[in-house]
Parts: sequence; structure tokens; C-alpha cells
Amino acid sequence: MNDSFLDRIIKGDTSAVARAISKVEDSGAHASELMKQIFSRTGRALVVGITGSPGAGKSSLVDKLAAFYRKQGERVGIIAVDPSSPFSGGAILGDRIRMQTLALDKGVFIRSMATRGNLGGLARASVEAVAILDAAGYDKIIVETVGVGQDEIEIAKTADVCVVVLVPGMGDDVQTLKAGIMEIGDVLVINKADREGVLRTEKELQALLTLSARTDEWQTPIVKTVAIENKGIAELAGAIEQSREFQKQTPASTDRRKAVARWRILDLLREQLVAETLGVDGASNKLERLASEVATKQRDPYSAVEELMKARSQDSEVRSQKES
Amino acid sequence: MNDSFLDRIIKGDTSAVARAISKVEDSGAHASELMKQIFSRTGRALVVGITGSPGAGKSSLVDKLAAFYRKQGERVGIIAVDPSSPFSGGAILGDRIRMQTLALDKGVFIRSMATRGNLGGLARASVEAVAILDAAGYDKIIVETVGVGQDEIEIAKTADVCVVVLVPGMGDDVQTLKAGIMEIGDVLVINKADREGVLRTEKELQALLTLSARTDEWQTPIVKTVAIENKGIAELAGAIEQSREFQKQTPASTDRRKAVARWRILDLLREQLVAETLGVDGASNKLERLASEVATKQRDPYSAVEELMKARSQDSEVRSQKES
Repeated sequence: MNDSFLDRIIKGDTSAVARAISKVEDSGAHASELMKQIFSRTGRALVVGITGSPGAGKSSLVDKLAAFYRKQGERVGIIAVDPSSPFSGGAILGDRIRMQTLALDKGVFIRSMATRGNLGGLARASVEAVAILDAAGYDKIIVETVGVGQDEIEIAKTADVCVVVLVPGMGDDVQTLKAGIMEIGDVLVINKADREGVLRTEKELQALLTLSARTDEWQTPIVKTVAIENKGIAELAGAIEQSREFQKQTPASTDRRKAVARWRILDLLREQLVAETLGVDGASNKLERLASEVATKQRDPYSAVEELMKARSQDSEVRSQKES
Repeated sequence: MNDSFLDRIIKGDTSAVARAISKVEDSGAHASELMKQIFSRTGRALVVGITGSPGAGKSSLVDKLAAFYRKQGERVGIIAVDPSSPFSGGAILGDRIRMQTLALDKGVFIRSMATRGNLGGLARASVEAVAILDAAGYDKIIVETVGVGQDEIEIAKTADVCVVVLVPGMGDDVQTLKAGIMEIGDVLVINKADREGVLRTEKELQALLTLSARTDEWQTPIVKTVAIENKGIAELAGAIEQSREFQKQTPASTDRRKAVARWRILDLLREQLVAETLGVDGASNKLERLASEVATKQRDPYSAVEELMKARSQDSEVRSQKES
């Protein structure tokens, strides 16, 4: 790890920041020296997670919120987590649309992140990208996820303040959905609030909030916005700020930070263990052979895993004998 | 592993099936002897994945499709993967609603599966539940997932035929979503096809299909349904059958099965490696301590992972010395 690269990141040099994010995207193991140094320089930014169903207008909301922060003279980082990309470049499409409005502004850094192949690591990489932007001095960092998947919910939970975006009258099984994602929302937004059904949705949300299992005393606010007309954005920013202030004063936020830390450690551990196992000589070829055998039912996946794990422990035994 | 338990599963004894699924939910490692035996008895059922956004009416569609198969005298298993449950029991709610219509029928087995805690494993557990139902002689197995998360998409891809459910006029960022999930769809459904905008949605889908990056020659059908009125269900079942027949005749399905096998092996490997690492004496306490230290920024997550991995390799060294 070369100090001047770290220095450039910390000074907020956007090309160094972009390169650092590519590094964590490509590999967790190789970036860990860099990330150790980055980690101690984080904690200054306000990280806002924005999550909700497809079609809720999250992107417009993120763009308008970013513009609001920019008017206050703050630097804004945006990480858009887009799991659909491996199939057809959805993230790139999203980026292009945004290029037209925000990306000419030097005070805004936008990055879309997508899954790459089988090894996962999207959650880990996106959390690390946030840390890089934090160390690089961005005042506000907005993480946008399509909020219904397991990983996506985990990513949203790592933010300081998690905003859940809903729209009026989303359909009949929305009741179940709301109950699920509402409890991760520190702030709820009803976007497209000029549509029919907004009052009903608001009442439903209020009813659900009274049933909510939150362990703290926070009164989750419901903010109505019409993102494409820039309505309600200042109110949203205010609610986000209040949630952050509340958390500073409450002991429950310690538990929350610990849960996030536990999740990050486990996610990183998982990735590094797999990388180590597949890093053993010949392991990738073995994986391909085992996958073919499992696909044709010549072998079950459980004994395939046993074979990979055995190769790993033999390898580490050989290495420890050489060392001693 | 006790043979009579396996026998009971294979005979389709529902209480044995339910217990086997609980076993794989609780722990991957302990169930692997059972699963090795189950695996060799799979491959007879048709596994249908049904995925799509919240509010698309997936549950109604699954229920009507299950009823259709029942009328043909087939036994049907339903696995509903519900990641929202850890927060408020969404899966249980879903089950209750279904109890009223399908669950009195002995030929239908319904199970909701949800995440439990930090260790993940939902994808692995749901794929194993499908294998159990397959070995137990269910003719059709329907796996329902909320289809926008990374894991959820992976689960959907493990099905023989993957059905993506959309609704007319879902909103402005639907274009991106569609492009992403469409390529995993062997069959596309426009549900709630009595609503306005159905023709426009159909045209958009057709346009996107011409851009699709599918590697085989399959002409993805678009089926219009109104699930709550039981309309279009026979057409859907027909399209599913055609897709399966097509796959039997095409070499691309070998690659697909291999990709699924590779994903299953890696998913299982990941879980077993973490279980092994956290199974080392004192590792859970260490994890809690490290999580607290990371939460208070006394330590970075990377060195925390190094410490856990070091404890693991020391433990396996000690064990291998004892053995020799």
C-alpha cells in the first residue's frame, strides 16, 4: 500500500476514490490493507440509506436530495446498488440518465455497483465504497438499494439513517411488505404523493407503526414527497437530520452499530474463507469438475463441498509443515 | 441418519417432510448426511420458480397455479421465500391467508421460509427444501420469491422454469428492472391484465425481449393473467410445460444446470466454512467482542476477520497434531 494513493483518497481526489472503489469491487482480500487504513478515517459523514420497491421513484428522490445537500454547500457521494446489472447493465443505464443532471457537478460522486459472478461480495463492496467516500470527506453519502432482497436490506441497515420509500396504493400484498421493511425505516416516505390513495396509505402506515417492534422511542416520521416536482425534499432532509440527532442520544444505537459490525465481520469472513479455499492450487479446476458432476447427478453437492474443504485443509497442513 | 426417517420422507409422509425441512433450516452441517441421501432421489419433479416485485400478485398466481395442477391429479409443493419475516413474521401472515384455501388439501404442501439471524443460508435452505419435496414425490414444486434481491434471483434461477411476474404500468424505473429480471425469465407473466396499460407493457416487454442476451433459441412467451379471477392460468401452465420441453432438447440447459450446481456448491461451502470457523472453542464470544470493538471504532473489521481466521487455523493445526 502506497501512502500517496491513500493521501489522494483522503484529499478527495475523485480519480483516486474511483480507483479505490474498483479495488474493493474486484477483490476483498487484496483491498484489505487499504481498507484498514481507510477505516480509521471514517465516521464523519452522514450515511443515508434509501430503499424501497422498484417503481417507487427512489432514483429521482436520491437525485433531488443530493441537489438539496449541494445547495447547502455539502459534498455528496451516491452509491446505487443494482443487483440486476449482471444480466444487462442496468446500473450503467442508471448512471447515464444521472450524468445529465448531477454528474457535471464536481461536488457529487456517483457510482453504481452490481454483482459480479458467483462469489457475491456486493454487500461488502458497497459498504466499503461508503467508507472510502467517508474518508474522502464527502459530507453526505446516499446509498440507494432496491429494498426487498436479503442482502439489500442488510446494506440499508448499515446506514446511519434508513429511509424507506413507498408509493400510494401499491397493490394487495403490500401490507406484508410494509410490515417487513417498515421496521428498518427510520424515516418513511410516501413518494408520488400527488397520486390517488395517499391518505389511505398514510393511515395504513400509521396503523402499522403502532404495531411496530422498534426497541427505541423514536417516532418514525412519514414524509410525503413528489420527487420529480422537487416537493417535500427539505422536509425529508429535516427528518433525516432529526433521526440522526435522536440516535446520538439513545443507547439503542449502540446495539444497532454492534449488529452492523457483526454483520460486516461475518460477511467479510465468508468471502475471505471462500477466496482462501478457492485459492488453493487447482481448486478452480476442481470446482468446475465438481459442478459438472453435480449437474449430471453423478455426485451430490455435499460431498463436493467436503472435497473442496479437504483440499483446503491438506494445503494448509502442507504449508504449516514447511513453515515449521 | 436413521433409515426409517428417510423412508418416511420418500413415501411422502408430510410430518417427516416438514421435519426434514426444519432440519435444513436450522443447520446446513447437521443435515448434510440426510441431504446426501435425498439428493440421489431427486430430479423427477418439475420445479417452477415464480418471482417478481412486491404487489405483482405472485401469491394469488401461485395459489391458482397450484389449484390447476391439483385438478390434474398432481401433488404440489409450495416454498414461499420471504426475507421480510425476521422483522415481523410476514411469512406467517402469508401462510395464514393460504390456510383458508389450499392447506386443507392433503395433496398440497406449503412452507414459508425466512431468514434467521446473521448467518444467511436462506438460499441454501430453500433449495434443499425443494430437493426434499422432490424426493417425497411431489410432482410440481413452486418456489415463490420476491424477485429483486441478489439471493432471491439466485433462488429463482435454480428452478427448471423461471416465471417472472409483472403488472401493467409499474412506474418509471421499471424499464431498468425489467431488463434485469427478464433475462432470468423463461416465461413472462403480465398479471392484473384487466388493468389499464396492459398493451403498452406488453409492447415494452416485446421490445426488451428483442434486445435480450439469452444464449438459446427460446422464444420467451408473454402470458396475460388475472390471477384473482383465475384467468390465464391454463395458458401459464402450458407455457411452463413448453419451456421445460424446450430445455430438454437444447444444449444450453447443460450450461444452466452446471451454473446452478456451481452456485449451490459455493453457497454451501461458504456456510460450512463459516460454521466451522465459528464452531472453534470460544469463537462466538470472540465474535461478540470483536463486533463491539469494530462498532466503537477501536478496531477495523479486516483485522477482526484476520483474528477469527487465525484462531481457526490454530485450532485445526492442534487437531491435526493430536491425530498424528
